[in-house]
Amino acid sequence: MSDPANALLEARKKNYDLPESPRSVGWTHIQRATVADRENPFVLETGKTLWPVEVEYETYGRLNRTRDNAIMVFHALSGDAHVAGWDADAEKMGRTWRLARPGWWDDFIGPGKPLDTGRYFIICANVLGSCYGTTGPTSMCPSAGEPYRMSFPAVSVGDWVRLHGRLLDHLGIDTLLAAIGGSLGGQQALEFSLSMPERVRGAIILAASPWLSAQGLAFNAVARHVIMTDPHWNNGNYSSDKGPEHGLSAARMIGHITYLSRMSMENKFGRRRGRTPSNDRSEGWIVNENGNGNSNGAFEEDPFFEVESYLRYQGSRFVQRFDANSYLYILRAMDHYDASTWGHGDLIEAARRVKCNNLIISFTSDWLYPPGSCRDWATALSRLGRSVTYVNIPSSYGHDAFLLEVEQEGNLVRSFIHQLEKID
Amino acid sequence: MSDPANALLEARKKNYDLPESPRSVGWTHIQRATVADRENPFVLETGKTLWPVEVEYETYGRLNRTRDNAIMVFHALSGDAHVAGWDADAEKMGRTWRLARPGWWDDFIGPGKPLDTGRYFIICANVLGSCYGTTGPTSMCPSAGEPYRMSFPAVSVGDWVRLHGRLLDHLGIDTLLAAIGGSLGGQQALEFSLSMPERVRGAIILAASPWLSAQGLAFNAVARHVIMTDPHWNNGNYSSDKGPEHGLSAARMIGHITYLSRMSMENKFGRRRGRTPSNDRSEGWIVNENGNGNSNGAFEEDPFFEVESYLRYQGSRFVQRFDANSYLYILRAMDHYDASTWGHGDLIEAARRVKCNNLIISFTSDWLYPPGSCRDWATALSRLGRSVTYVNIPSSYGHDAFLLEVEQEGNLVRSFIHQLEKID
Repeated sequence: MSDPANALLEARKKNYDLPESPRSVGWTHIQRATVADRENPFVLETGKTLWPVEVEYETYGRLNRTRDNAIMVFHALSGDAHVAGWDADAEKMGRTWRLARPGWWDDFIGPGKPLDTGRYFIICANVLGSCYGTTGPTSMCPSAGEPYRMSFPAVSVGDWVRLHGRLLDHLGIDTLLAAIGGSLGGQQALEFSLSMPERVRGAIILAASPWLSAQGLAFNAVARHVIMTDPHWNNGNYSSDKGPEHGLSAARMIGHITYLSRMSMENKFGRRRGRTPSNDRSEGWIVNENGNGNSNGAFEEDPFFEVESYLRYQGSRFVQRFDANSYLYILRAMDHYDASTWGHGDLIEAARRVKCNNLIISFTSDWLYPPGSCRDWATALSRLGRSVTYVNIPSSYGHDAFLLEVEQEGNLVRSFIHQLEKID
Repeated sequence: MSDPANALLEARKKNYDLPESPRSVGWTHIQRATVADRENPFVLETGKTLWPVEVEYETYGRLNRTRDNAIMVFHALSGDAHVAGWDADAEKMGRTWRLARPGWWDDFIGPGKPLDTGRYFIICANVLGSCYGTTGPTSMCPSAGEPYRMSFPAVSVGDWVRLHGRLLDHLGIDTLLAAIGGSLGGQQALEFSLSMPERVRGAIILAASPWLSAQGLAFNAVARHVIMTDPHWNNGNYSSDKGPEHGLSAARMIGHITYLSRMSMENKFGRRRGRTPSNDRSEGWIVNENGNGNSNGAFEEDPFFEVESYLRYQGSRFVQRFDANSYLYILRAMDHYDASTWGHGDLIEAARRVKCNNLIISFTSDWLYPPGSCRDWATALSRLGRSVTYVNIPSSYGHDAFLLEVEQEGNLVRSFIHQLEKID
């Protein structure tokens, strides 16, 4: 703990452990499990088989003796298994962006927090196709002797969930106390309750609907388009030092627009202008530096609107930590997910499979997974007499609300899980 | 009229003149006027001067003897002066996309239509910075002996409107009966009533608000980003045969998402899938044709979602007819427009300038210029006792409703103009 990187981590951790957030899970370590090999390959929804398959995951808290206090968290589109605490391996793994902040749902997971690590054993694993250690396009293809890239097989939300079932086998966990996730993670929680109904007692589905809307498909179509038409994408065969950064950055900018509500954008940025980000001049309105040398240049004096600076910052930060091919694979899974396929297109028929209790939460200003479509799943469950609580939380934060409305959401989740414990 | 192109035009015109739209203005011809020269340069809002400036415009109907029946139509972001009828010069000018369809608001303009060419003299001019004949980035810069490209000065909605004032001078028209436009064209109609309050008797502002929201700015930021990071953009110095097609196409795709409401996308496309467009395979999921030759390829069997095919089609069509630099200049004007600057940031102070009668129409499902922000202008006018009618038309079409809700919108516009005629 004496080298500078660790000293930095220590300092940051101490700083974080100040009163405003005193209940961190602390240092976290990645774990890995090989859940498919030549003898036991993983069969995908498409019928293709894949091996070896390795899963990278994290756990917090302790599995109890009766092995019935496990809660699996499912991450969203650009998330990862590092949900809470401070990644002790960040430096070693080259994931330096993790030095500056705790896991993405740290507010929610820790001693005394809604997912209380003093009571529960929390698991989160990276999805199949991810660029964070679980097998994906950046992994080596054993038969080709090079990374899969776009030869990686197409994967689905159903595949993700079944693979995580294998991880539970590996961990010796038969049944989850709860499956929980927001956004694409919420769809995984939903899918878990359909795919392995005997293995979960409670499904907690946040800001997620049984399928993506046409408008959601449209945004993803543009995101794909900008990645795949970036010449550096090169059919997926880019080098690790020069990928389709502009395309991936634009895709992320589009994503961020859909994560905020109109009102939260208005509140956060309005029409305020700021200075052009100094590290971003070559991409901005500043054309004359590399341009045609004509002093009549058009836009060089314009300050950026703050919302533009924000989006560019988010885009440029994302390309440091995410793989473009992985993004394409995960977008595809998001597009294709449709819970009603379990009922051959009939959502109520699909809901017949569900055995667990259900908590479904939407947010009034979410327009990526809008309340009406989240409620569709609650309605289907309740028509069949399944146990379901549906709450539409008033929030101006848009889709991001599932990460930000910690108090209301946390209270609902906490009491739902307490009820689950009593039922058994 | 005997050559094949004209025969085609004739055939199309006849076909169009069938009962479903019998009242076309017929053949139209472009007109041009030089409205600024060395002796009389045009001074822009930025303080820069520009000359020569030529305006391309179209007119329909006849100016009456008292010269008081003129209505000026302002076009939107990607529109042009060809508002109605069949462009007789399309072939000659290389604007072949106009062969297949009449002007963009043909439903609205013609004998007996809401803008009745039997009664009114209709004018529409391309904005400054446009790629359709009015001076812009594709025009020759006299001092440089080459096209302006990005050395063209920044232009604003205020500049557009004042330049069109010069066109009215050229046409010998002192006062407009009405200024009308939708979207960015509606902002021009609004600006006309502020900039030249004595020269217009009625402002008709459709689907337009006094400024663009933070969310609107965000979409435009991404559109700019994808154009300017396309390597073929090359700081604006692209050749006419190879511009930033992918970037411009993506920008247009983003635009189309904002033009449709969530509901109209759902109704139009839902989650239906179709075949990959055959002319678009190299950009689609079909990576193995030019790809790494690995037969394990991921997505090649996926049909496109229809919404994706639609957006790609719109994108690819747009690059045939629009200039990327022009798009950047016009986006900038859209971003920067703020009617309240006439009141030093106070919208009601700005509204004091207005002398004309006003008709403001918004559409319930429009989320680019949402009803609440359109109403802000009506509220400001009515607080000052100005004559204003505000109607929020129920529509599921989103922003595009101003082009599609012809009947309700048309009736309102028709009777508003009839009232204007009676007032004088």
